[in-house]
Amino acid sequence: MRIHIHQQRLGAALQQVQRAVSAHSTMPILGGIKLTADVDGLRLMATNHEIAVETYLAADSDETLSIEVPGSIVLPARYFVELVRKLPDPWVHLAVQQPYSVQITSAKAAFLLHGFDPEEFPRLPQISSDQPFLIYSDNLKDAIRQTVVAIAAEETRPVLTGLCMKFDADSITFIGTDSHRLASRKLFLQGGPEGASETAVVPGKSVHELARLLPEDDTPVAMTIADNTLLVSSETTRFFTRLLEGQYPDTSKIIPTTFKTRIHIRRDPFASALERALLIAREMQNQVVRLQLQSDRIELSAHSHDVGRVSEQVPLDQFSGDALTIAFNGKYMLDAVRSFDGEQLTVDFTGTMSPMVLRPTDGQEYLHLVLPVRTV
Amino acid sequence: MRIHIHQQRLGAALQQVQRAVSAHSTMPILGGIKLTADVDGLRLMATNHEIAVETYLAADSDETLSIEVPGSIVLPARYFVELVRKLPDPWVHLAVQQPYSVQITSAKAAFLLHGFDPEEFPRLPQISSDQPFLIYSDNLKDAIRQTVVAIAAEETRPVLTGLCMKFDADSITFIGTDSHRLASRKLFLQGGPEGASETAVVPGKSVHELARLLPEDDTPVAMTIADNTLLVSSETTRFFTRLLEGQYPDTSKIIPTTFKTRIHIRRDPFASALERALLIAREMQNQVVRLQLQSDRIELSAHSHDVGRVSEQVPLDQFSGDALTIAFNGKYMLDAVRSFDGEQLTVDFTGTMSPMVLRPTDGQEYLHLVLPVRTV
Repeated sequence: MRIHIHQQRLGAALQQVQRAVSAHSTMPILGGIKLTADVDGLRLMATNHEIAVETYLAADSDETLSIEVPGSIVLPARYFVELVRKLPDPWVHLAVQQPYSVQITSAKAAFLLHGFDPEEFPRLPQISSDQPFLIYSDNLKDAIRQTVVAIAAEETRPVLTGLCMKFDADSITFIGTDSHRLASRKLFLQGGPEGASETAVVPGKSVHELARLLPEDDTPVAMTIADNTLLVSSETTRFFTRLLEGQYPDTSKIIPTTFKTRIHIRRDPFASALERALLIAREMQNQVVRLQLQSDRIELSAHSHDVGRVSEQVPLDQFSGDALTIAFNGKYMLDAVRSFDGEQLTVDFTGTMSPMVLRPTDGQEYLHLVLPVRTV
Repeated sequence: MRIHIHQQRLGAALQQVQRAVSAHSTMPILGGIKLTADVDGLRLMATNHEIAVETYLAADSDETLSIEVPGSIVLPARYFVELVRKLPDPWVHLAVQQPYSVQITSAKAAFLLHGFDPEEFPRLPQISSDQPFLIYSDNLKDAIRQTVVAIAAEETRPVLTGLCMKFDADSITFIGTDSHRLASRKLFLQGGPEGASETAVVPGKSVHELARLLPEDDTPVAMTIADNTLLVSSETTRFFTRLLEGQYPDTSKIIPTTFKTRIHIRRDPFASALERALLIAREMQNQVVRLQLQSDRIELSAHSHDVGRVSEQVPLDQFSGDALTIAFNGKYMLDAVRSFDGEQLTVDFTGTMSPMVLRPTDGQEYLHLVLPVRTV
């Protein structure tokens, strides 16, 4: 293998795949990135036990990559990525030397970096994506961001540490819950297999990596589920993750369909007041914040024997129904409030011991549910 | 105590003093910041076992502070600092409630924060600063930055974990060394006590805090040494640190006064090449980088059995003397090179086993010495 490539282009590609590198594996080769050059371009690939990322740089797309001799090598990410970032010249020249080393030159700097036999690098799953679910990158990224916040951090019920994606022919519903709160977001597809109905529970860490990888634009993205693996692919990049096993709970029944009290409230003042209440509440078990609802305003309060107390009135845009006092985990509520994009949100209450439901005032495809906390 | 103050002004002052707060002391009151309001202004103070910081906000300087009732309280920094940062309104109102709590209000947010008896807060040392050493803040900050890099991280010889400041009537010499390298910087005073001759060894951590506190401008700063304490004071702020005990070694004799080879080299290309060499060298004991000097260029190289090797030529601006090959700890050399401000530096060599001396090409008040590493 002998190639010439622009440092920036190689650096950007390495940044994408390096997230899948296994930093602490007992197999040193998994700490590597596989480079494969054919006459048309360069493929970079990394994988650990959970995810794999592959990206392809076409040689004909512009003048930033030329392939002199096709070939392949696995290079240790730990050195290669930083080395490329620190090169003195925009051009990098890579020449594989037998066995399994590469000569890297750029201006007057010359490296010889030891690598691994590319034949020993794990193969990626063979997944046919004939009939994928089609979606835009930024929409997928948004839906993940809004729902992943509610997944469980603890392994008590392993399936809850994942983000549930329910696919049907025209939409994906994303559900995250740790059993104290729940976020649900429905996203309409650009296309999908007819009559499809599939459920994938993606490990939380994989979901974060996927969101990081997705560009914040309308790049078309295809999603495919097969062999307990989710494949998310764009024209140049493929992301694989294994799925969590186990039955995801049916969450549809816990979402109240009626309400006794409804408020419309502006997101930012509500979030700021919650942050202040949490300064006191965060010391307490369950980070309890109390909310008193009256017809024209709400009052948030928190109390800690050791630290002190706080109370604050927050103005309402709209109120209907009964006055109510309710207590909740302030951090969960803040996570929920922050996950909304619009200026205003609607919160529905059905009673002191019933879940609160937050929705954007102008939409129904997204909701966040927070369970109250019992206080004495 | 009852005062009204602008959030920004209070926040800035808290940021200064909070660095001296003892986060993990067994005495909870040391986790606090003492506020003392008199008719003229507000004094904030924090101290731990090493350093103390005190800053004074005058009530008459502008309209951002008004004292209604003088008084005093100690408030837990952990809550108070963040709380002030998160207040909803530019104005903060503080009213002390007996015993040892404060009511904090800002717009519609109201906090009651528990504090401590101000009488129980440690007193600051009484140091008379009649005849201080006078210096500009930015100069002091620079001198610290350039020399503190060479102090010892390990406690093998405790006195070397401090930065040595040798005061005389018209200058301060700053010396840092870990016995493998040495940085020395001389700073001329704006004024000092006649016939003065004092040496203070300031603990490394204190030096970092002092540098952080010093503004990057020509604020006049007065330095006083008494009772094993260094006091650094500006018009509004006082910084105290205890000093390290023990005899600081006489370093004057290890600085070579002659040289066999001298190069002039541009700082940035040299630093970049060292960074690249370190990518390989950092894996090795002593991070050995080898330097070959020839009349028109130098070649840096490093080698690691496991990782690979690197070599790079760096152009020289000037060369005089003999060709030479020498090896050193690349990280120490990089620290030294980076500590210079100018575009070009001079490096003097007296032999393969003798110290290298780096100086700015255009000055003699600053030098960095690096010992070579013996390689087989």
